Amino acid sequence: MGIADLGLPVDVPSTALFTDQYELTMLEAALAAGTAKRRSVFEVFTRRLPEGRRYGVVAGTGRVLDAVENFRFDADVLGFLREHAIVDGPTLDWLGSYRFSGDIWGYPEGEVYFPGSPVLRVEGSFAECVLLETVILSILNHDSAIAAAASRMSSAAGDRPLIEMGARRTHELAAVAASRAAYVGGFTSTSDLAAGFRYNIPTVGTSAHAFTLLHDRERDAFQAQVNSLGRGTTLLVDTYDVAEAVRAAVEVAGPELGAVRIDSGDLLLVAHRVRQQLDELGATRTKIIVTSDLDEYAIASLAAAPVDAYGVGTQLVTGSGHPTCSMVYKLVARARSAAPGAPLVPVAKKSSGGKTSVGGRKWAARRRDEHGVAETEVIGTGPVPEELKDRLLQVELVKGGQVVAREPLDAVRDRHASALANLPISATQLSRGEAVLPTEYA
Amino acid sequence: MGIADLGLPVDVPSTALFTDQYELTMLEAALAAGTAKRRSVFEVFTRRLPEGRRYGVVAGTGRVLDAVENFRFDADVLGFLREHAIVDGPTLDWLGSYRFSGDIWGYPEGEVYFPGSPVLRVEGSFAECVLLETVILSILNHDSAIAAAASRMSSAAGDRPLIEMGARRTHELAAVAASRAAYVGGFTSTSDLAAGFRYNIPTVGTSAHAFTLLHDRERDAFQAQVNSLGRGTTLLVDTYDVAEAVRAAVEVAGPELGAVRIDSGDLLLVAHRVRQQLDELGATRTKIIVTSDLDEYAIASLAAAPVDAYGVGTQLVTGSGHPTCSMVYKLVARARSAAPGAPLVPVAKKSSGGKTSVGGRKWAARRRDEHGVAETEVIGTGPVPEELKDRLLQVELVKGGQVVAREPLDAVRDRHASALANLPISATQLSRGEAVLPTEYA
Repeated sequence: MGIADLGLPVDVPSTALFTDQYELTMLEAALAAGTAKRRSVFEVFTRRLPEGRRYGVVAGTGRVLDAVENFRFDADVLGFLREHAIVDGPTLDWLGSYRFSGDIWGYPEGEVYFPGSPVLRVEGSFAECVLLETVILSILNHDSAIAAAASRMSSAAGDRPLIEMGARRTHELAAVAASRAAYVGGFTSTSDLAAGFRYNIPTVGTSAHAFTLLHDRERDAFQAQVNSLGRGTTLLVDTYDVAEAVRAAVEVAGPELGAVRIDSGDLLLVAHRVRQQLDELGATRTKIIVTSDLDEYAIASLAAAPVDAYGVGTQLVTGSGHPTCSMVYKLVARARSAAPGAPLVPVAKKSSGGKTSVGGRKWAARRRDEHGVAETEVIGTGPVPEELKDRLLQVELVKGGQVVAREPLDAVRDRHASALANLPISATQLSRGEAVLPTEYA
Repeated sequence: MGIADLGLPVDVPSTALFTDQYELTMLEAALAAGTAKRRSVFEVFTRRLPEGRRYGVVAGTGRVLDAVENFRFDADVLGFLREHAIVDGPTLDWLGSYRFSGDIWGYPEGEVYFPGSPVLRVEGSFAECVLLETVILSILNHDSAIAAAASRMSSAAGDRPLIEMGARRTHELAAVAASRAAYVGGFTSTSDLAAGFRYNIPTVGTSAHAFTLLHDRERDAFQAQVNSLGRGTTLLVDTYDVAEAVRAAVEVAGPELGAVRIDSGDLLLVAHRVRQQLDELGATRTKIIVTSDLDEYAIASLAAAPVDAYGVGTQLVTGSGHPTCSMVYKLVARARSAAPGAPLVPVAKKSSGGKTSVGGRKWAARRRDEHGVAETEVIGTGPVPEELKDRLLQVELVKGGQVVAREPLDAVRDRHASALANLPISATQLSRGEAVLPTEYA
């Protein structure tokens, strides 16, 4: 996969080293023991939602598909493994021709999930599946954490636009994935140019305090900005005195001024004062954007304030208190032998210290009540009950190593909105609570 | 910078889009207004440490130097900016020949910091400096957060090795940076192969529960692993019954068994039982590694347990409750005009809602008491007092656009250990408290 394919100033010639070493040593030992070819089923799920959260959001699936397709051991990588004696010669040979040739099913991206939901299922030989654990979990755990926070913020914001501006608060490439996940969760735009470049997410941005401080007078900075970006721009009005800045802003840009941004202080109070002042100055259509340390609770608390848009940084890219999900990648079934067609047996680690796993390849369906509202996440290993057959959640993503389910990000975003709309209304309550759907094992 | 230079399966032809759009729109407006060439001083600092933390750890500086050197607008990037009309033609032309030509000073990587510490200072024209805000903050905020958590865990672990194994809990590339930051903070090794490849951090790993579950009997799995990895390997003993597993492990590998790993349950209790059993079986030199949801507090609570090494994942890569720092990048001084040699004037946003900035280019020094123990972080904008001249903290990192301070990661790791050793002993207390050094403005 080249730069052109990824469309980012980051070329990832291979994702094969986004791997924990034990995946390779297990491979080596299984190859030598003759068990590497046993057909295996791995599932990704989480045992619990972050404390107090009512639903999870599957995000990153599209990135997982790229990562799997691109999981190759080239000469540089093999050289590293050889030089550090991480695996033996036969294993290096096997890795050199590695291509995932199995099947992946999963919840479609943007769908919601609950404890136990089998959000991804990877099937193939043990050897080809075991290698994908870390890269799959990295992507899903990160992106789903951000999307879950974004979804809550989006519920809190209602119809008001949400701008993602957290790049400076997280790793530079995590930031790009975070913008993507935020968009899935309902955000409108991003400040991160790499996210615009890579994912076509609308980008926005006008000026920071530094621009005002660069100039001899605040008014000079406003004039320079309006000259360059037009009267429809957003002027930052809290570098010195807000009331003076608002007056200068309207004098410079006229009532056509697009928006003012407030980045500090008591946002509720300041927004009311600024709205009143703007209206008195005739700038009745000038919008107010607030951007200071917001999270879903702060957004909700501003619902009645005259605010037109929110910019969210830190709390978005850190998952609003939950920067990762606890998704795991577990072997749930494997063949009795390496012979083709050998029957699968369910397997599971013994429960211990809260680490419970349920063996067997699982289906999942969401049962609805008579109004069409979701009421139970049903998970089973046996036959699917007739009444749930049109409620199955997993879709085919990779078939025989070929990705079969790429989709535009807007479709993912729409799916999330729709999935959320079908949950009980209490799903969007911000207060801490239990998962909004119980998980039932059929 | 090509793949060979980065030594990673990730080529970053440019870091120029790890940028918030407002940096480019400010540039455009300043170019048009004739203020873009005003000499400017930006500083990176944090107003506060994460709640309860006693010191911060500067990490990521080496990555910042790579990012600055590599900040280029190539044809693809310029095409994107043109197509989306993000900036005008003259600005695109200016960007096309962008190379940072200014100076950067900062705390050397691995050094500790406190509220207000000017950990990085970027000087040059406004135009060339303003563009670097986001990428610099992304790197420092992420890496310093991880290093701070690592440093605390390292203090808690004492002489016992710490293995970084959190790749699956964070973005796949954040994971590589996290391994690097963990190493700076005192970790010994990583499970992440990309971190080994890129930064030469020692990598480790043997097997997961899936390997045991793949085989018909636990003993078969142990035998396969020992056949492949040798008797010195680490066997995972908590898939089924721990006591049975330990017995089987020693039977298969003999008393030369390298280690057993416990990944669930009451680690304190299980470690004691396993140690006793291993000793009774004659495996007195077989080590015990524990790896289940550890943080610095759990590590400290196991200090008296017969544990030989810790593996840490989630809490390391998420900064143990503080996944980001609150470092900001602020204009603190700029020239009165664009004329060469025009005098600098200090600038600062008006204080509001806890957002306090101090104008002026700053020096920083750490005053020590008669025993050589650090006692105050002294920050000033005027002349440096004579007695602090050999205690200055900032070093030259980039001179006239050229990186002048690359160093091996082991030197950074050693510097951190030494900086920590010079702090008052209470710095390593895990309990919540104030910054261990007060910040004094001279």
